[in-house]
Amino acid sequence: MHLDHNKADTSKPFFEYLLRLGDDRLILGHRISQWCGVGPYLEEDIALANIALDQIGQAKAFLEYAGEVEGEGRSEDDLAYFRDDIDFRNLQMAEQPKGDFGFTIARLFLFSTFSELLFEKLKDHPDNQLAGLAAKSLKEVRYHVRHSRDWVLRLGDGTDESHERIQKAFEDLWMYTEELFYMDDIDELLIKDGYAPNLADLQPEWNKRVNQTLEEATLKRPDDDQYMATGGRVGFHQEELGYLLMEMQFLRRSHPEAEW
Amino acid sequence: MHLDHNKADTSKPFFEYLLRLGDDRLILGHRISQWCGVGPYLEEDIALANIALDQIGQAKAFLEYAGEVEGEGRSEDDLAYFRDDIDFRNLQMAEQPKGDFGFTIARLFLFSTFSELLFEKLKDHPDNQLAGLAAKSLKEVRYHVRHSRDWVLRLGDGTDESHERIQKAFEDLWMYTEELFYMDDIDELLIKDGYAPNLADLQPEWNKRVNQTLEEATLKRPDDDQYMATGGRVGFHQEELGYLLMEMQFLRRSHPEAEW
Repeated sequence: MHLDHNKADTSKPFFEYLLRLGDDRLILGHRISQWCGVGPYLEEDIALANIALDQIGQAKAFLEYAGEVEGEGRSEDDLAYFRDDIDFRNLQMAEQPKGDFGFTIARLFLFSTFSELLFEKLKDHPDNQLAGLAAKSLKEVRYHVRHSRDWVLRLGDGTDESHERIQKAFEDLWMYTEELFYMDDIDELLIKDGYAPNLADLQPEWNKRVNQTLEEATLKRPDDDQYMATGGRVGFHQEELGYLLMEMQFLRRSHPEAEW
Repeated sequence: MHLDHNKADTSKPFFEYLLRLGDDRLILGHRISQWCGVGPYLEEDIALANIALDQIGQAKAFLEYAGEVEGEGRSEDDLAYFRDDIDFRNLQMAEQPKGDFGFTIARLFLFSTFSELLFEKLKDHPDNQLAGLAAKSLKEVRYHVRHSRDWVLRLGDGTDESHERIQKAFEDLWMYTEELFYMDDIDELLIKDGYAPNLADLQPEWNKRVNQTLEEATLKRPDDDQYMATGGRVGFHQEELGYLLMEMQFLRRSHPEAEW
């Protein structure tokens, strides 16, 4: 368990939990969608756009269900377009600017490897609806892992420039990796009821898979003994999230009732 | 037949023809992909991104085949990323900036209605490979027509604001509609050999379908008796295409040999 920056709202832990699942994918999906039309190859442009679509589709499903569980009549659109940044629950890793292609690939690899392990647990969740969403998402996530892993290998074991860039991407991302396994009162309450996996149980396997790929790609695992950022789960975000939300929410907010 | 601004290169008419098919979809797909992450609803964001992906996928297939037919070893990536704007063959309609949501929908409707009619002819093309690509694309295009038509009806027959905006979108786009049916020496050479449909044969049905939808949406068909822009087919483009290509080609050109 990690120190809380702030207290999570524990009155509706399952709602909070679904929000966290949805927000990670909504924000990362939007970051990846910023490659639309500017990918390095037509093929890759299409692959990244498909991955972004998968994630935004997953986000939509998790947020829709979060709205149902909350029971206050909020739709997935209300949750996506009418919350402010302090009400977003995504990992700080997800909100980091899109960076270069190596950064995008490294982030996708680290996050998807985590997601795969998480959804493998959640597919057996006692709540059938969450279990179903996790099972469906798992298929997509396995492809995201495979796709990003292949690129990590190609870039790491590629030219000097590609090697340096992808190594730097992992260095820049490392301070956000600890947050993948961040748990607070929300998790504690749910774990007690068998309603959430203990993320600490996933960490050894995540480490193993990441280390194996880095090694195969001739890359160095960055230093774990460094400042690790957390706080996204309780609404601490960097300025960058504000810009992303401005772009994402502007149109919808400027015509809240119109058919736009 | 229309007056040529310039002479098309008639030495490889089938290559030229495939390039035109590919470029329309590459450029329009990129324009639509600019909605990625900024659509008015999550659902619509996903729908537009899927449509953009369909178009870019179609473009990839047409350009790949164009490269084969040209026989000079150019891949679809070479054609997408290493041509300058005067070598692009897309309709001017496709390169217009993304505009508001109504503009995007109106353009998609006008273009897809044309594409559907065109692919219905091309699916019986004597060249099996082109026939196959057209048949596959036709299924996607039918969905694009349905999706954009539904929105034209909702916006046209919606609020005062949505009605005004979509009407204005059709007015702004109208000067680019004549070019859909533009033909020059390339078409003439191919028509003679049964290798291209006569676009004039498609125009009455296109008019009928467009008129019917406009009427149902309580919209007015803009005046046909106005200046009509052509020239895209022989490389006349507006400044806007340059900006789009700059964005699209920058990354690839700045690392031509690297694995980025």
